[in-house]
Amino acid sequence: MRAFQDTYPENVAHCYGCGRLNEHGHQIKTYWDGDETVTRFQPQPEHTAIPGFVYGGLIASLIDCHSTGTAAAAAYRAEQREMDSEPPLRFVTGSLHVDFLKPTPLGPVLELRGRVKELKGRKVMVESEVWVDGALTARGEVVAVQMPDTFKA
Amino acid sequence: MRAFQDTYPENVAHCYGCGRLNEHGHQIKTYWDGDETVTRFQPQPEHTAIPGFVYGGLIASLIDCHSTGTAAAAAYRAEQREMDSEPPLRFVTGSLHVDFLKPTPLGPVLELRGRVKELKGRKVMVESEVWVDGALTARGEVVAVQMPDTFKA
Repeated sequence: MRAFQDTYPENVAHCYGCGRLNEHGHQIKTYWDGDETVTRFQPQPEHTAIPGFVYGGLIASLIDCHSTGTAAAAAYRAEQREMDSEPPLRFVTGSLHVDFLKPTPLGPVLELRGRVKELKGRKVMVESEVWVDGALTARGEVVAVQMPDTFKA
Repeated sequence: MRAFQDTYPENVAHCYGCGRLNEHGHQIKTYWDGDETVTRFQPQPEHTAIPGFVYGGLIASLIDCHSTGTAAAAAYRAEQREMDSEPPLRFVTGSLHVDFLKPTPLGPVLELRGRVKELKGRKVMVESEVWVDGALTARGEVVAVQMPDTFKA
């Protein structure tokens, strides 16, 4: 089964969080699991907050890319077509909110689970959770926005 | 002038975003500038979103650590004492919100500017902005919470 990110066009495949072509990045891989999306990620020892716990910035980053990936996958699914079909639908983050519910232990694989809350026009709202060893440690909400053809500063 | 992060006790100096002892991390340095706080950070070429623009997860991470640093500094200032005086005041992130206002060009140094919106009991609410070449590209809000003596999962 191909991950969402393995279908991204080359010009959006360099993201530090999810780009398969960014050799320094996290290269997360996200898949459907029914109506939810799942990413599993192994934090590295340097991804520390307080020793023994995962850095919140990493958690925010994972939620961000997991959620934009979920948004893209949901948009293709709504059009009943494959993620590598034309025209490509690319999403960027409009806003990101993370509630850190409890410290996330550093060591086990993290599991992110996403759900589409709303898909309306060019916006997709995604709720994502971070689980570790059966405990919910963070909850995120992302408003993903379809990228204009000309992405300029 | 010492940065806030250079006064952090050793047990909170390993954070990937702001720990001076994390050799793989960002090691951000934050200073007072009047009633605002300032962090300047040079993104690296791999910190890409779309080629040419800064990865949103990095922006979220910088806002996170800049804001918890601002919270700590403000808490010491409210007690009219130096950041390395006893007892130490340590803050963790309760929630993080980032609005990505426009794409952040990758290349120039980023400037984060923080302000304390509210300091009440063990909570400090901080608003932080990301500026690049005179343009405001992202705005964040962090609720920082004083860390309990026993930080456990």
